[in-house]
Parts: sequence; C-alpha cells; structure tokens
Amino acid sequence: MKAWHFHYTHKPLERAEIPEPTPGPGEVVLDIKAAGLCHSDVGVLDKEDWLAIIPNRPIVMGHEIAGVVSAVGEGVTEVAVGDRVGVCPTGASPTNPGYGRDGGFTEKHVCLPGDLVKMPDGLSYELAALGTDAGMTSYHAIMTIGGLQPGWKVGVIGFGGLGQVGARVGVVKGAEVHVAEVNRDLWDRVREIGVADVVADAAEWAGQGFDLIVDYAGFGETTTNAAKAVRRGGTVVLVGMGKLEFTLHTMDMILGEVRVLGSNGGTPQDIADVYELLASGEIEPTVTVVGFDDIPAYLDKLRAHEVTGRVVAHIAD
Amino acid sequence: MKAWHFHYTHKPLERAEIPEPTPGPGEVVLDIKAAGLCHSDVGVLDKEDWLAIIPNRPIVMGHEIAGVVSAVGEGVTEVAVGDRVGVCPTGASPTNPGYGRDGGFTEKHVCLPGDLVKMPDGLSYELAALGTDAGMTSYHAIMTIGGLQPGWKVGVIGFGGLGQVGARVGVVKGAEVHVAEVNRDLWDRVREIGVADVVADAAEWAGQGFDLIVDYAGFGETTTNAAKAVRRGGTVVLVGMGKLEFTLHTMDMILGEVRVLGSNGGTPQDIADVYELLASGEIEPTVTVVGFDDIPAYLDKLRAHEVTGRVVAHIAD
Repeated sequence: MKAWHFHYTHKPLERAEIPEPTPGPGEVVLDIKAAGLCHSDVGVLDKEDWLAIIPNRPIVMGHEIAGVVSAVGEGVTEVAVGDRVGVCPTGASPTNPGYGRDGGFTEKHVCLPGDLVKMPDGLSYELAALGTDAGMTSYHAIMTIGGLQPGWKVGVIGFGGLGQVGARVGVVKGAEVHVAEVNRDLWDRVREIGVADVVADAAEWAGQGFDLIVDYAGFGETTTNAAKAVRRGGTVVLVGMGKLEFTLHTMDMILGEVRVLGSNGGTPQDIADVYELLASGEIEPTVTVVGFDDIPAYLDKLRAHEVTGRVVAHIAD
Repeated sequence: MKAWHFHYTHKPLERAEIPEPTPGPGEVVLDIKAAGLCHSDVGVLDKEDWLAIIPNRPIVMGHEIAGVVSAVGEGVTEVAVGDRVGVCPTGASPTNPGYGRDGGFTEKHVCLPGDLVKMPDGLSYELAALGTDAGMTSYHAIMTIGGLQPGWKVGVIGFGGLGQVGARVGVVKGAEVHVAEVNRDLWDRVREIGVADVVADAAEWAGQGFDLIVDYAGFGETTTNAAKAVRRGGTVVLVGMGKLEFTLHTMDMILGEVRVLGSNGGTPQDIADVYELLASGEIEPTVTVVGFDDIPAYLDKLRAHEVTGRVVAHIAD
C-alpha cells in the first residue's frame, strides 16, 4: 500500500510502498479514510529534538487518523468490522501513531481497541480525523484541565487550529469567551463564532479578572500576561509550545493564588466529547481537505503559515 | 496602652501610648497574650512596595495574634469573654492586622468574630500566635492548595519558619517528605522531624517523580527545578516570595501536565487544623519567645537571619 515515509530531520517525506498490516491477537486494523496534517509534523521535519521520540525510522508520518474497522484479531470484542472510528493518538497503545508506530499517511492502520473512539452518525471522516488531535487537545485543555464552567469569563490566546476549536467549545459550553489573536486578518472569523471580544494582545486583559485563560500559543509573554489577567484563584492553562520557556511573576502567582496548569494531548473520552460537538455542527472548524499526493506540499504551506485552520488528507472514499 | 508604631519604610518602629479600644456593635476586643514576628514585618520596614497595603500610618505592626476575649460588642454570639482565641490575619475583617488596621505589637486588639479561631486546651498562646500566619500559611500551601495525600512523595523547599511546619505537617499526614535546604547547619534539625531525606538543592530531585513539591523559598530557580521533579500531573505550590520572578520550561509544563499553584495566606479552618496539630504536640516548631521591649531588636535579627524558626513576643501572662 502507498505511504509517506519520514526518514530524518531536514529530509523530504518519501513516497513508499509498504506491506498491508494484519491484526495480531487483540489488535484492530482500519482502512484509513482521512488523516490530518499538524504543525507537529512540520516540527518533526524541521527540528532534531523530535527524533528522540521517533526511534524506528523510516516511519509513516501522521497522527490524526479516522477510518473504518476492516479486520480484528483474536479476542477483540470492543469493536467490529464496519465500525467508523477515530484513533486517539495517546490512547491504550504503548506507542503513538506517526512517532512510535506507523501513522496515518497510508491506507491501513493497526492499533488496539483502547485507542479507538466510535464516530457518531453524521460525522465526516475529515472532521473525525481532526477531532483526534486538534479537537482532543483543545477540548482537553479548556474543559478537562481548565474545568470551564458556564458563565465563566474565559480567554483564549491564539486562534489557530487549536484555538479556534477551544474558543468555540467555550462558547457552546456557555462561557463569555474573549480571544487574543495577533493576526487581525482572522478577526472577522473570530467574531463569527460568538465570542464577546477580540484583542491583539493578552496584555490588554491585565486585571480583568478572567476565571480561565487557555494559552494555545505559548509564546512566553502570552503566559506571563495571562497570569496577570485572571481573578484570585483563577486558572491559566498552557498548551501551546510557541517558545521554550516563560517567566511568571512571583507576587502575581502568590497574591492571586493563580493556578498555571500544563495540558498535553487528551483521552478517548475527550475525543468522544468533541465528536458530539462536531457531529451536531456546534463546532465547525475551518478545514482544508487535500489529496494523498498533496500531503508534502501542504506541510510546506503549514510551515509557511499559508493555511488557516486545519488541513486533512482524504485517503479513501 | 503601649504599642510599637510603624511610620514609614526605613524608619525604626516607635514606642507609643495609644488609647484602649472598646468594641462597637458586632466587634470583639482581645487582651493580647502573644504576638508573632514575621519576615514580612522586615519587608515592611525595608521595602516601599509594602506601603500600598498600609494606607493609614502610623499603625501598630504585627499580624500573628493570640489572646483572650475581654469584651464583646452588641450582637456578638460566636465568642464570649474568656475564650482563648487566635486571629486569622485573612479572616472576616475587610482589613488585615498590622497592615490595614492596628496589629499585635500592643496590649489589646479589636476585630470581628469571623476572624477568630478558638484555641484547643493545652495550646500555649505563643504557639497559637505562630499558628495564625506561619502555621496557617504553611498548612494552607501543603494541604489545602497542594492537596497532600497519605503515601505521596512530597518535596519541601526551604526549612525556615514556614517550611519546618510544612515539612512536619507532611510527615504527620503520612507523606514521604524530602527537604531541600541550602543551609547545612539545619540538616540535623530537619532529620529529627521524620523526613526521608534532605538535599542542598532541589535541582538534585530532577526526574524523581514527586507527587507534590511546596516551594516555601521561592528563589526563582527553586520553582523552575521543582517543575522538573514532579511526576506527570504533579503539583508545585509556590508560597515563598524569595525572588520577584521565575522561569518555567514550556515542554516540562506541557509534556508533564505540571500544575504550578500560587498559595497565599489561608483561612480560619486552616488555623483550626494547625491548632490541633500544635496542641497534640505532633508539630513542635522551633520558637524563640521574647519580651515586648525586644521586638525591634528581634526584627533586626530576623533581617540578619540570626534566628532559626519563628520569634514570638510574650505580651502578657
């Protein structure tokens, strides 16, 4: 079957033919229908730091996978052939797709039943693929880690692939959502999703008593500013890795009993929750659907920030 | 009655004679028996930053107060004349003793019933005074904010007035407590209270998977190091203000889903919990008891780090 292989940092992905997988005992094989492209993929291509978590190369890139179960191994009872599923990249398997095991830029995928989340009726494979990482990660940050409550005043920093989902989740869940997005070209789109306000810089929020701010950018000073904008006992969730480090002011942290919480990935339950919101149309992220052959070109566009929202490759009908 | 007045930064405390207070409706007057000295008092004397929260000067300094109720105003039912009580410095009153209203370095104190915590039998006034701030703050940080659970691996950074109480609370509550204390002269004392281990620098804890680390020092790199030493989902509580800011590493925070929580003061319930531990003898902090006239000299000793543990002034028998 066809695949896009990652060999090494600074090397282009290589088109390869690889054997089709068969499920061992307890394993599941999917026919992949859609696979998302992610800024992390660009990171893998550009930065040697990532090689540490990609021990076996070449490997099939891609960690946002949705498809239909096409074969199950001995003892698998949780899913059946024909089930439409997404793959939690941080699920039951000891490895992560696209890093520790072959990922989504190919035609079939082998994993464990505990990695899989069943898709509700009416959810497209493209949105299901997106939901496994961009959706899961943004939902996990704002809901599971951030603990968002209806009526809260919530800030979302960064309106990229994750922030756009997080902001809309906040609106749907009944919060008063404010967005900080430096790119004013996105402001019209921000206003369309029902937020209260949009500013260029989270520094403008200082002293405004937010209950929760989720920093999907992580550009250092964004987190510093967020800690100055929450109420006493308020929460800052850090999920974006824009810069390697950031500074917090001790008095802000202590006098305000501020909580700064890191958020990483999520769980199959986060994906299931996001799937409900995607299937109902309550969340409509901006998605560009491309073909299998277009994957390397669109990773280049992601690197150049030439795409708004998420990119998903359509693998099969 | 006699009092020590704070006039302004860099000015010595002045001995004054002030009128005895009488309780208005809903108010309580105590005869002060003991009043604690605190590093914050040294901060007030040395740093203009504090003037912002001391609007009315001169003011009687001292925010760790214990005594006996000597008069109650109309409508007070929660306490009665003769009750032995400590004063929560962050209790029901809109002001804090020693900052927004006259404090403890005098003979009587007026406050609200909601500031008061009744002392258990057998608890000395000196320990009760200490318990209202050093005790409350250290307990609040490690238990209320940190959420310490029995069996947890817990780090305590700094074995000063707060850290010594926090570390012992951790031991009593069934945690495996490790202490980081740069001053090796204190190590014998650290080992006496039942901790598992003591190191000079929290950097030595990197990667050791602590469930909780409470930074009673707050010297910048101490917090940075703590974030590298907790397990996935682990908690760092920041309560010491040793330096004005600190740096966190984004990848540590996110990949480990680390929680960094500021802790400030506490509640009457925290004091009540600490009082039980002090009254039973389970916590025996190092205390130096001094006379009323010695207060300025002992603030100088605190500044010069010439005292181990806490200092409490005996005000009346």
